[in-house]
Amino acid sequence: MSLRVTSPSAELVRRGRESLDFARSQMPVLDAIQAEAAVNRPLEGHRISGCIHLTKETGVLVELLLAAGAEVAWTGGDEVSTQDDVAAALADQGVRVFGRRGITTRQVEEAAAEALTAFPSGPTLVLDNGSRLIETVLGDRDRFPELLAATEKTTEGSRRVREWNRQGRLDFPVVTVNDIVTKWEVDNTYGTGQSTVDGILRATGALIAGKRFVVVGFGHVGRGVALRAAGLGARVIVTCRSATTAVQARLAGYEVLPLRQAAAVADILCTATGYPDVVRGHHLDLLPSGAVLCNTGHSVTEINLAELQARTEEVREVRPHVRRHVLAGGRYVDLLSGGGLVNLDAAEGNPSEVMDVTFANQALAALRLGRDAAALQPGLHEVSGEQDQEVARRKLVAMGIDYDGTE
Amino acid sequence: MSLRVTSPSAELVRRGRESLDFARSQMPVLDAIQAEAAVNRPLEGHRISGCIHLTKETGVLVELLLAAGAEVAWTGGDEVSTQDDVAAALADQGVRVFGRRGITTRQVEEAAAEALTAFPSGPTLVLDNGSRLIETVLGDRDRFPELLAATEKTTEGSRRVREWNRQGRLDFPVVTVNDIVTKWEVDNTYGTGQSTVDGILRATGALIAGKRFVVVGFGHVGRGVALRAAGLGARVIVTCRSATTAVQARLAGYEVLPLRQAAAVADILCTATGYPDVVRGHHLDLLPSGAVLCNTGHSVTEINLAELQARTEEVREVRPHVRRHVLAGGRYVDLLSGGGLVNLDAAEGNPSEVMDVTFANQALAALRLGRDAAALQPGLHEVSGEQDQEVARRKLVAMGIDYDGTE
Amino acid sequence: MSLRVTSPSAELVRRGRESLDFARSQMPVLDAIQAEAAVNRPLEGHRISGCIHLTKETGVLVELLLAAGAEVAWTGGDEVSTQDDVAAALADQGVRVFGRRGITTRQVEEAAAEALTAFPSGPTLVLDNGSRLIETVLGDRDRFPELLAATEKTTEGSRRVREWNRQGRLDFPVVTVNDIVTKWEVDNTYGTGQSTVDGILRATGALIAGKRFVVVGFGHVGRGVALRAAGLGARVIVTCRSATTAVQARLAGYEVLPLRQAAAVADILCTATGYPDVVRGHHLDLLPSGAVLCNTGHSVTEINLAELQARTEEVREVRPHVRRHVLAGGRYVDLLSGGGLVNLDAAEGNPSEVMDVTFANQALAALRLGRDAAALQPGLHEVSGEQDQEVARRKLVAMGIDYDGTE
Amino acid sequence: MSLRVTSPSAELVRRGRESLDFARSQMPVLDAIQAEAAVNRPLEGHRISGCIHLTKETGVLVELLLAAGAEVAWTGGDEVSTQDDVAAALADQGVRVFGRRGITTRQVEEAAAEALTAFPSGPTLVLDNGSRLIETVLGDRDRFPELLAATEKTTEGSRRVREWNRQGRLDFPVVTVNDIVTKWEVDNTYGTGQSTVDGILRATGALIAGKRFVVVGFGHVGRGVALRAAGLGARVIVTCRSATTAVQARLAGYEVLPLRQAAAVADILCTATGYPDVVRGHHLDLLPSGAVLCNTGHSVTEINLAELQARTEEVREVRPHVRRHVLAGGRYVDLLSGGGLVNLDAAEGNPSEVMDVTFANQALAALRLGRDAAALQPGLHEVSGEQDQEVARRKLVAMGIDYDGTE
Repeated sequence: MSLRVTSPSAELVRRGRESLDFARSQMPVLDAIQAEAAVNRPLEGHRISGCIHLTKETGVLVELLLAAGAEVAWTGGDEVSTQDDVAAALADQGVRVFGRRGITTRQVEEAAAEALTAFPSGPTLVLDNGSRLIETVLGDRDRFPELLAATEKTTEGSRRVREWNRQGRLDFPVVTVNDIVTKWEVDNTYGTGQSTVDGILRATGALIAGKRFVVVGFGHVGRGVALRAAGLGARVIVTCRSATTAVQARLAGYEVLPLRQAAAVADILCTATGYPDVVRGHHLDLLPSGAVLCNTGHSVTEINLAELQARTEEVREVRPHVRRHVLAGGRYVDLLSGGGLVNLDAAEGNPSEVMDVTFANQALAALRLGRDAAALQPGLHEVSGEQDQEVARRKLVAMGIDYDGTE
Repeated sequence: MSLRVTSPSAELVRRGRESLDFARSQMPVLDAIQAEAAVNRPLEGHRISGCIHLTKETGVLVELLLAAGAEVAWTGGDEVSTQDDVAAALADQGVRVFGRRGITTRQVEEAAAEALTAFPSGPTLVLDNGSRLIETVLGDRDRFPELLAATEKTTEGSRRVREWNRQGRLDFPVVTVNDIVTKWEVDNTYGTGQSTVDGILRATGALIAGKRFVVVGFGHVGRGVALRAAGLGARVIVTCRSATTAVQARLAGYEVLPLRQAAAVADILCTATGYPDVVRGHHLDLLPSGAVLCNTGHSVTEINLAELQARTEEVREVRPHVRRHVLAGGRYVDLLSGGGLVNLDAAEGNPSEVMDVTFANQALAALRLGRDAAALQPGLHEVSGEQDQEVARRKLVAMGIDYDGTE
Repeated sequence: MSLRVTSPSAELVRRGRESLDFARSQMPVLDAIQAEAAVNRPLEGHRISGCIHLTKETGVLVELLLAAGAEVAWTGGDEVSTQDDVAAALADQGVRVFGRRGITTRQVEEAAAEALTAFPSGPTLVLDNGSRLIETVLGDRDRFPELLAATEKTTEGSRRVREWNRQGRLDFPVVTVNDIVTKWEVDNTYGTGQSTVDGILRATGALIAGKRFVVVGFGHVGRGVALRAAGLGARVIVTCRSATTAVQARLAGYEVLPLRQAAAVADILCTATGYPDVVRGHHLDLLPSGAVLCNTGHSVTEINLAELQARTEEVREVRPHVRRHVLAGGRYVDLLSGGGLVNLDAAEGNPSEVMDVTFANQALAALRLGRDAAALQPGLHEVSGEQDQEVARRKLVAMGIDYDGTE
Repeated sequence: MSLRVTSPSAELVRRGRESLDFARSQMPVLDAIQAEAAVNRPLEGHRISGCIHLTKETGVLVELLLAAGAEVAWTGGDEVSTQDDVAAALADQGVRVFGRRGITTRQVEEAAAEALTAFPSGPTLVLDNGSRLIETVLGDRDRFPELLAATEKTTEGSRRVREWNRQGRLDFPVVTVNDIVTKWEVDNTYGTGQSTVDGILRATGALIAGKRFVVVGFGHVGRGVALRAAGLGARVIVTCRSATTAVQARLAGYEVLPLRQAAAVADILCTATGYPDVVRGHHLDLLPSGAVLCNTGHSVTEINLAELQARTEEVREVRPHVRRHVLAGGRYVDLLSGGGLVNLDAAEGNPSEVMDVTFANQALAALRLGRDAAALQPGLHEVSGEQDQEVARRKLVAMGIDYDGTE
């Protein structure tokens, strides 16, 4: 049975519209790019399959693609982040939307497959997140004969694209929109940093000041989470695998410990590594009773949920987004968002103003592919430093900030 | 028509129960005091009328009063902060609860009057917030012949009690639970500091980093808000009326400006003064379009809403808790929580762990009055430094913190 | 043999003059008060004996007293803080100056006695620090028949004055210039906070980032030191004796530990308590090898030097202000400034801009006593909140800061 | 006349020895590498010409080179940073040392030329800073026939090496020890960040809290300076030329302004760009009277001193390292360290513990060249990520920090 969103209620469409309008009022850069694209329509004739968390901000990006002339099919790509009202408002404009909030992991995959096959002759462009669609395309290349190019948005997805490129498997261009300052620093550090503590606050209402807050992983996301947790008064403990990173974390004023020692004193523990199975059963055995456990890394796999389940004697949903796992002897841990992305599930993902920058890069990349995809060599392309500067310049104008580059 | 909560639905009671249990799990000090009071029952025979924001944490305090032997009548004392599920769960235990979320200002007063007259022969003790009930008692003293004593919890309320005491109007003892370290620093600074930015985050989802965040007033609450806004990356601007305070704010690293200049550059403006009419029409005229406006001071009066309304051409509820006031020329400001307490309306008030300390002081004061009210002189009494230390010691034990006083 | 400074070299006088001029350029408030006092000369006919660390900033205060018409005798009151060039420049203007840098503890007392008896008929006013002169006066009251009043500047000294007042021993007015915002917050927290880490930096050149920095005591000075150490990237650990203070330190984001546990992990340990013998032999036994040990509290007694000496096998001056105590087994600790005030010995004491405020309060108090001492009741007087506000207002003007009080 | 240090006094040698020993006690990584190199002596037969600021930490590096078997000639490469006692102690061990503190710019060049020609048949290895020696070699290549390889330590120097490599001018291998985490983050950000504010504190004694502190340039050094200035309570204003950098600076919580606007409000202005002539006359015209002006970038050229001099009516040395330039109308600015590197001139350069990491990389690179230079291709080589990790691992061990990489 198809997961396509059809005939949404007028009320849901209205709320989605309201949500999109509010987001748009915080996204001046994307709004300005859309105004230009609505005139030139560089995506006229293109069919786009997209797979990025279907939040209100993604909705604004999708509306830009429509305004630029494209037909669009979309899916959110995970279990918890789709905002159904936004999905409804997009469906109401003719977007083929697949999936909804609360679907199973299997349904996530089915929705992605549907988004990719929503057009009889397949998409001409793919906008990806975590390389889910690209992987499917590579696995069944003949089925997508008219595909011209793709973009990929995440660190983890870019890693996979790079590997496929190394193996010579990319016979079409893929533009990674990740290794750029506005993405690394703005989205990963400041965006996810804030939205993660926001998610924890909304889920638990806990006082952060004075808490021992363990951040697992100290890449751009981990740094952002540490910065914001410390900014709310936590004593931050960092765990990581690289020696140079460990030195940096310590010089930044954080405690550095092996995960085993950190877990044993954690009031709150948050994973931010991009790798699976980082928190294992033997770590769970060490957590103090009452510890809060959550994840803001790439997917739901950073905390080994099977090993948590195996130790659980009773589970209760004590608040929305908070599942209390009672373990042996009455000890308990509170798992947030079922181990999924706490910032997208318990809060609203990264702030609109941050996604404005990230999606401006995404939009400019897509618009350029709309015009030039055929001219690009197959293989990996990185968004240029010039586009990075252009997006930053547009953002500074929107923020009313003057700097020496504008003299 | 009475505003008493009667016959709540089982589902509402169940959700309230869940909420109370979750709060209790974060309030170990209050829980321990309750365990002791349930044995000694020092409030046996007492009738208590209370008027404190009816959150889940207040619910835990009310349950302690019940366990100590009291009969209880309660009202929340404002328009927006009553959690209806908690009210239901208390009513289900026999508490006389008055008012609900979303009542009018007039109904707030009626509910307070009902809480005070809920017992045929009136209360023996009053637990007050902002001196609302005490003021009524003083205005109609003969109607409350069995009243023995009262407590008052806020800065503003204590100011009024002190004034009445100076005028010789207090013919019963009033214990103010405010001028103590655990209240000033823990509740006002760290509690309200966090819950205020939490409320702003939940209401707007805005990125705080890089924003100009104006804090109006730099008492304990203002300091807490400034600390947390800066901790999330804001550039904080402080306005205040005292010269010594202005020096402190500047040395703390904040910009200090007159309100007129601050308003003109504010991305977010939050009042925290305890005084009415701090933000006036001529300030509103200066706010940049898109500015967020909110209040975390004593009541709904810090922002002059009449003067805002007079300038408003259109109002839209763009998100829950966010009312967009479109002003002349298309300029707009987003008013949070209708100008009421943003931390109680858009978030959940101060964290349970903070209220644990505040209400432990409240509870110890009430329990002592239960035993000793008759022995106390009429007039103003302040909670002793010894009780302050006792609560702090209990909290340190609950947090597992060892310090030199315990050697 | 007298410790009076006589016939200083022209070169020393010149350097002192330069130093005084530089300080004056950072002390606009004191400079403006001097300009007014030079016209009204409210100290005409007064003889002042003063005992405050003889730094360049104190020198500017002394020059103000001269300009206001007083004759002045002065001593620094400790072993290490007298700046000999400043002493020379003051002596050159006719001030009776006693003591020099590097005198013994016994000589410190002799110099104080000389400053008090420098005028044949004794002083009319005393300006004190730590109540050293006042104590002498009280012990030999008849010898100072013309004494009209005194001021006291420190927390510890005010404590003693309050005790003498309670005992009814004060038959003359003593104005304490301590329990005021501009002193508590500006001088103790921000002034001593910075000058202490400055002293540690100058003495050791050590990287602070990533260090475990133990602050012993969490009053205004301790808070300032913790704030600045954290601001340089240290992981701060606080030890204290009060439970409410311990709660505050933890909520401020610091680790709280008993001193025994803190000492065992200290990279740097700094006392800031105002009490003697805080760091004892059994703490010294726990310090890691290489630990830096220093004091910024009231005097040289916070670290028990006798117990350190008893454990020392060898002492070497490894850098100016750094004495390396080699203990049993080759373990060593680096004691800064011989356990005296590290901010005065290894750095230059609190910044001139801070002393501008502190000494403005001192100066205004002295000038008022010059006019009104006879009218004041004997006993303890505290500087008024109005003077506090006046000094703050003058400072804000000097800093070019506008605030709402000036509207 | 040669600038070689000959026959230093025994007292100077003794003080240099003490200084080297103190530094060594803070440099455990370098000390351990020396212990290994003293056994294997991989530099046996090598002649090294070095040009790196001759501080006590550089002295420890030079002693390591000696212990590894090399003959060494050295010069500091600037006017102000040479510590004469350290130079004396090295000369006493047979090192050919050229230059001294306080030489002219022309003498700096002569000393560098002498260090390069100190061995009759020239050096086999060059250790460079800012590519001064390498440039001389390239300009007169035939004169250095036995040169096998060189290392370069700075960002600016690496930029020049990269350019020469692009032009095909490098016919010998040059290893840049710069683009690595332990250098970027540890040395540039945390090392120079601290030592720069340390230099400003020592030179001026100014209170940093509440000051407007302008950081010109926001690379790794600028970020470190901003971080530390903010940590001492300053309100930091950043100026920069890149849009992406401007966005980052603002999100980090700093004000971003064009330099003209920033200069007009600066209490303290510090350059950290690596480029010449950043602060020009038209900026100097805007500085408020009393502003402090300093530089911590690559060399003495960031502030245009000629344009400052042209505006100066009188210059006075008001304190060591502080030159007061009185401009038209009595306005003045205080120039620190004559516009040279304030952290090396007024303080002691980066902390020994930081240089431990930087020079460990330098030492490992030199030791490897000692063994393998002949096997390396001509042209640019970067220090490998593996060496970076190795140095970090050694540092973590020295700091007693456990992390997950050690499991």
